[in-house]
Amino acid sequence: MRICVEKTAFFKILTHQQSLINKRSTTVPVLSHVLIKAHYSDQGDPIVSVHGTDMEMSLWEKEIIKPFESPGASVVCAHLLCEIVRKIDDQWVTLESFENHITIQGGAAEFHLPTLPVAEFPFMETQDLPFELLIHPGVLADVIKDTSFCVATEETRYALAGICFHFREDTQHQLSCNVVATDGHRLALSRLTDIRMNQSAAISGTASLLVIGRRTVQSMLRLLESDSGETVSFRFSANQVSIQGEKFQFFSRLLIDRFPDYIGAIPKNHLFRVQFDPKELMKTLDRVSMVIEERTRSVKLAFCKTGLTVSAHSSQGSAKEVIKISYDGEDFSLVFNARYLSEICQHARGNIMTIEGTKNQNPVLFQENNRDALYVLMPISA
Amino acid sequence: MRICVEKTAFFKILTHQQSLINKRSTTVPVLSHVLIKAHYSDQGDPIVSVHGTDMEMSLWEKEIIKPFESPGASVVCAHLLCEIVRKIDDQWVTLESFENHITIQGGAAEFHLPTLPVAEFPFMETQDLPFELLIHPGVLADVIKDTSFCVATEETRYALAGICFHFREDTQHQLSCNVVATDGHRLALSRLTDIRMNQSAAISGTASLLVIGRRTVQSMLRLLESDSGETVSFRFSANQVSIQGEKFQFFSRLLIDRFPDYIGAIPKNHLFRVQFDPKELMKTLDRVSMVIEERTRSVKLAFCKTGLTVSAHSSQGSAKEVIKISYDGEDFSLVFNARYLSEICQHARGNIMTIEGTKNQNPVLFQENNRDALYVLMPISA
Repeated sequence: MRICVEKTAFFKILTHQQSLINKRSTTVPVLSHVLIKAHYSDQGDPIVSVHGTDMEMSLWEKEIIKPFESPGASVVCAHLLCEIVRKIDDQWVTLESFENHITIQGGAAEFHLPTLPVAEFPFMETQDLPFELLIHPGVLADVIKDTSFCVATEETRYALAGICFHFREDTQHQLSCNVVATDGHRLALSRLTDIRMNQSAAISGTASLLVIGRRTVQSMLRLLESDSGETVSFRFSANQVSIQGEKFQFFSRLLIDRFPDYIGAIPKNHLFRVQFDPKELMKTLDRVSMVIEERTRSVKLAFCKTGLTVSAHSSQGSAKEVIKISYDGEDFSLVFNARYLSEICQHARGNIMTIEGTKNQNPVLFQENNRDALYVLMPISA
Repeated sequence: MRICVEKTAFFKILTHQQSLINKRSTTVPVLSHVLIKAHYSDQGDPIVSVHGTDMEMSLWEKEIIKPFESPGASVVCAHLLCEIVRKIDDQWVTLESFENHITIQGGAAEFHLPTLPVAEFPFMETQDLPFELLIHPGVLADVIKDTSFCVATEETRYALAGICFHFREDTQHQLSCNVVATDGHRLALSRLTDIRMNQSAAISGTASLLVIGRRTVQSMLRLLESDSGETVSFRFSANQVSIQGEKFQFFSRLLIDRFPDYIGAIPKNHLFRVQFDPKELMKTLDRVSMVIEERTRSVKLAFCKTGLTVSAHSSQGSAKEVIKISYDGEDFSLVFNARYLSEICQHARGNIMTIEGTKNQNPVLFQENNRDALYVLMPISA
């Protein structure tokens, strides 16, 4: 293999691999490597493709390059190759593979990296995924960003360590998908509506609910955010998911645990309804929570007709601040985890958000007008 | 005490304190606090002053504020006060002290912080410092920045854990000061020339050499870099140093260990002389050293008439790059620590630097034309 690739495009492909490949896999060295292949496509286009896997996820991505004379393949350390390409001081990078090494050349610099046998490169077993949804990459990225901050990070909560995609058909056979994440203290739900699938009738059966793990979600997000196409193909079976764009194909196993009944966790009865500016509350929380120690990050929200008083105290001191709200009921107060509350505000799009709840220790509901997303947060006992 | 201070100016004073005050001193809580005092100066100006110490260093800084009715003092947690002032959403901050707390108010936010008794605030014992030098803060900051990266960081090399200021008088009674740092592997020297002191005759005696510790140097640098005045007073005795500007006074103990004979460490005989562009070498080192592991950061420099080949290798791979130099002698090569070499290049001001040495394991000398600074670096045995 001897090829000449455009630095920026090749670097972008290599950075996508960083999110799934172990930086240093000492037990299985080949898992820290990528497979680089140069060949001519069926249409006759000269192509370089990069393949990486951690055996849970797999990413293949290609780019059309300058015509080359010598096709071939090479298995190289992903992290080092990415760093080298990033720092090369030239628009073009030349790669030439030999029996057990590869040279990378650009500008005045030349690198030799050892390679592993191409035959030893592992491929994750992938299936034909029966269900397919065509979706704009930006729309899919948005629902992931709207919810992924609520994914459980504790290793013990395995069933909650991912985002749940729940497909549902209403009585008019309209298909929608609830995208949900929860860590047991809070819940985020964003909705994909008016979607069309290849087998919408079948979806209401077993495969209607898929849970995509935290690391998979992060890798998907990087791919979606840098994809400039109009649609990607989102496919899944009962235990795998894939997204495919014009230039890439990404596979991942699903978390096989079942997801808890999130619909039951969304409060339906409300005794109060308050409107506030989420950006303003976020700034206030940032100031007020300075006086609280990491472990007990609780802030008190006292609602009354004249305004919302946000306060906190600890041995370090106390703080309070009043912000404007729209509310005309009786005075009441609730205590929340400051960081959880702030993260909900941070994910708001506009400057009016609504809180609804029952003034006691039941979960409260945060929503924005004209937006298919909601957040549920448990108050802390004061 | 009830005063109203301008947020930006007050915040700047508090950040200066951060460099010397322990963020959390649990054994001696008062050492994580600052003393804030409001009073009218002899000239009748309303003044707020902030005093902090870690008992090795001491900083006092003042600012003229709005006229106030109630003077007084308060001892507050430095770190928390600084954070609060930083985040307050208003141009003005109001401080009001009570018996055992202080309120800080700005915008819609109000904070209460516990305070410690003013009588318990510790003052570091300071002396009358006999030697005084008036110097532009930028000039003093420059010699510190030119040399401080060579200060030893290993705790065992106590004598090298600071910058040495060595005052010398030549035969024409012209006074100069060599500012030197070394960690045993490399040495940086910058020179203050044409300086005038209050007692230049006496300086050639005992106090001609002072070693200022690493932390002191960093605190001094912050003060000097944010001082917009024309001169600061740099004073010292055999065991203390101070700098005083229009609005601040900073004291620190000196390291009492003696500094090694650095003059003997500067190579005087040269068998080669090479000119190169330090910025270009720095970028090349950055690329070439990607293939070497942290512990053995050695790069080889092969000099010949046609150019300088910078190369490195490890089990991860190898790299080489050729850059232009001005040299017309025999071919030879030297091995250096990549980071040390890169840091010397980084501190160059222009785009021509000279290396001189003896082509063997003796130290080499790096200099720039028209600049009173030099760097010495030991090669590594290849």
